[in-house]
Amino acid sequence: MAEFDLIELIRARCAVTREDVRLGIGDDAALLAVPAGQVVAVSTDTLVSGIHFPKDTSPHDVGWKSLAVNLSDLAAMGATPAWATLALTLPQADRGWVGAFIDGFAALAREFKLALVGGDTTQGPLTITVTVHGFVPENLALRRHGAHVGDAVFVTGTLGDAAAGLRMLRDPALAAGNPATAAMRAALIDRLDRPMPRIAQGLLLRGRARSCIDVSDGLAADLGHICQASGVGAEIDLAKLPASPALFSLLSDSERVPLQLAGGDDYELCFTAEAAAADDLLSDLARSGCAATRIGRIVAEAGVRVLDASGHPVELPRAGWQHFSS
Amino acid sequence: MAEFDLIELIRARCAVTREDVRLGIGDDAALLAVPAGQVVAVSTDTLVSGIHFPKDTSPHDVGWKSLAVNLSDLAAMGATPAWATLALTLPQADRGWVGAFIDGFAALAREFKLALVGGDTTQGPLTITVTVHGFVPENLALRRHGAHVGDAVFVTGTLGDAAAGLRMLRDPALAAGNPATAAMRAALIDRLDRPMPRIAQGLLLRGRARSCIDVSDGLAADLGHICQASGVGAEIDLAKLPASPALFSLLSDSERVPLQLAGGDDYELCFTAEAAAADDLLSDLARSGCAATRIGRIVAEAGVRVLDASGHPVELPRAGWQHFSS
Repeated sequence: MAEFDLIELIRARCAVTREDVRLGIGDDAALLAVPAGQVVAVSTDTLVSGIHFPKDTSPHDVGWKSLAVNLSDLAAMGATPAWATLALTLPQADRGWVGAFIDGFAALAREFKLALVGGDTTQGPLTITVTVHGFVPENLALRRHGAHVGDAVFVTGTLGDAAAGLRMLRDPALAAGNPATAAMRAALIDRLDRPMPRIAQGLLLRGRARSCIDVSDGLAADLGHICQASGVGAEIDLAKLPASPALFSLLSDSERVPLQLAGGDDYELCFTAEAAAADDLLSDLARSGCAATRIGRIVAEAGVRVLDASGHPVELPRAGWQHFSS
Repeated sequence: MAEFDLIELIRARCAVTREDVRLGIGDDAALLAVPAGQVVAVSTDTLVSGIHFPKDTSPHDVGWKSLAVNLSDLAAMGATPAWATLALTLPQADRGWVGAFIDGFAALAREFKLALVGGDTTQGPLTITVTVHGFVPENLALRRHGAHVGDAVFVTGTLGDAAAGLRMLRDPALAAGNPATAAMRAALIDRLDRPMPRIAQGLLLRGRARSCIDVSDGLAADLGHICQASGVGAEIDLAKLPASPALFSLLSDSERVPLQLAGGDDYELCFTAEAAAADDLLSDLARSGCAATRIGRIVAEAGVRVLDASGHPVELPRAGWQHFSS
C-alpha cells in the first residue's frame, strides 16, 4: 500500500467543507483565508504511543484524542477552530487502523466544523502530531498573564477523571465486578480516551476571563503557569475541587485528591475573573453544557497553595506531568 | 532536565522578531496576524531518524533539513515564509543535541526571517514534524494543476546530488581517496544534509509559471503529479537534465541518470510555463542565485516519458520514493 492511497483514505473520510479553505489536501501546501479582524491561533501537540496513550488504545480513540488535546489549546485561547494538519507516523500502512483512526479524528473535527487541510504520513514508531488553527479577535484572546490579585479562580467540568481512568486500565479488576461500578469505571476510561475540548466555554469567556489555561498537566501545575505569567499566586480550597460521581464513588479521598490536583489529561479550562463577575459567569457556563466551579482566589504571594476546610495549607502532590523529568 | 527547560533553550536560540507574531512561544497557542490580501500557505512534513535521514546525521543538519524540506513546499507555492511550529520527539533530553539541532534550524530560519511560534517536545524515537506557514496572494499561488499542452518544463538547480550523497555515505571509501574527489564527495553529502529551499525562485515564478511542484520524490514522480493534476503528459530530454560537476565527475552515466530522474531529496522546483516566456524566465532565474534549465515539454498523452538524443523513449527508473510501498 502506497502513501498516496493512505492520504486518499484520510481525505475521503475527513471531508469538511469550509469556504475559507481555498485549497485543501493535494498540493504542496494548503491555501487558507483568515477573516478580517481576527488573528490565527496556532498550536501543536504530539502524542507518542505508550507515553501519551496506552499502546492498546483503540485507533478510533487515538484519532479523537490527538485532535482533542490540540483543540483544548484553542479553547484556552478563546479561539474558534478552523483547520488542522496531521502528521501520522506509523509502523506499517495498516488500512484498517488508519481508517478507524481517521474516523475518530473526523468525528471530533465535524463537531467543530474543522477541516483537515494537509499532513504527512511516514513510517516509524507510532507518533501523531497535529497542528490546529483557529480564529480570535486579537483583543479578546484569553491569555495566561492577566490574573489580578482578588480574581476568583474557576475550573470547568470535573478533575482527576482521566488519571483515574488510567488507573482503571492498569488494574483490570478494579471496579469491574458489578454493573454499577463497571459503568463508572468505563466513564472514567472514556474521559481518558475521549476528552472533550471546552471550545464553547472558551468562546463564552472571551472578554470576561482575565486569564485562562487548559489543564493538561494537572490543575496545580497549570494554575502555576497562570500565576507565573501573571506575577501572582493562588489559593485553592480543597473542598471545592469538582469531582465526578464516578471519581467520588470509586476512589477514597486520599486516592482522589492527588488525581484532582496533579493527575493530568483533564483538558478542562482553568481561568480567573473578577470576583464580582463570578455569579454571572457561572450561570452562563452552566447553560453552555459544561458547568464551572469556583475553586479559589488569586493572591499576591507567589505559588499555588491548597487549603483544607480550616484554611490550613495541605501538601501538594508532586508537580504535573513533565516529559524528560529527571 | 524538564520539558520547560528544553522549550526555553529552543526559544532562546531561535529568536526572530516579526511584527505579525502577536504572541509567540509560551501560551496555549501563538497568535498570528495575516497581511490583508494574502492567504496563508500551510504545509507539514515529518522526518523520522533512519528513514528520512541517516541515524548518524549531525543534529545541526537534522535541524536545518527538518525546516528546509518544509520551506521547499512553500517555495513550490510561491509563498513567502513567515512562521513555523516544531514538534520534536527525542529519546532523551540531551541538551547538547537539542542545542545543535536548534542552531541548524535557526540558521535557516534567519535566512528567511521565519519565526518559530510554537511546538511540543516529547519523549520517544527521534521524529521531527515541522509545520510552516507563508503568505501568497491567492491569485498568484503556484499550483500543480495549470500545466498546458505546449508548456515548456523546467527545473531549478541540479538533480541527483542528494541521492548521490546518500550513496557516498553508504560507501565511506567512495571518492574519499584524493582531495579533489573528496571535496566533490563532501559537496554531494552537503546537498543531502543541507538542502536549500528555492524560496526566491518560487517568488519569481508567481504569475509566470503555470504549474509548479518541489522535487522531493524524484523528478519523474513529481512531474508526474503535475501531469496528473493538469490532465496532461510530459516529455523530458535526457541530455538536458542538469547535473552538478560533482555528480558528473564521480558517477558514470548509468549511475547518474537514475539518480537525476528518481533519486529524491533534491528539493528543486519543477515547473511549467508558456514556451514563449522561457528565455525571459531563464535569465531572471539565473540572476536570482539559482539558475533553471529547460528540460522538456508538456504533451497531451498522459504520463512522463524520457527521450534520448534521438527522441526515442528510454526506460524510466522505478517511481519515486514511497513510504510503505509494498
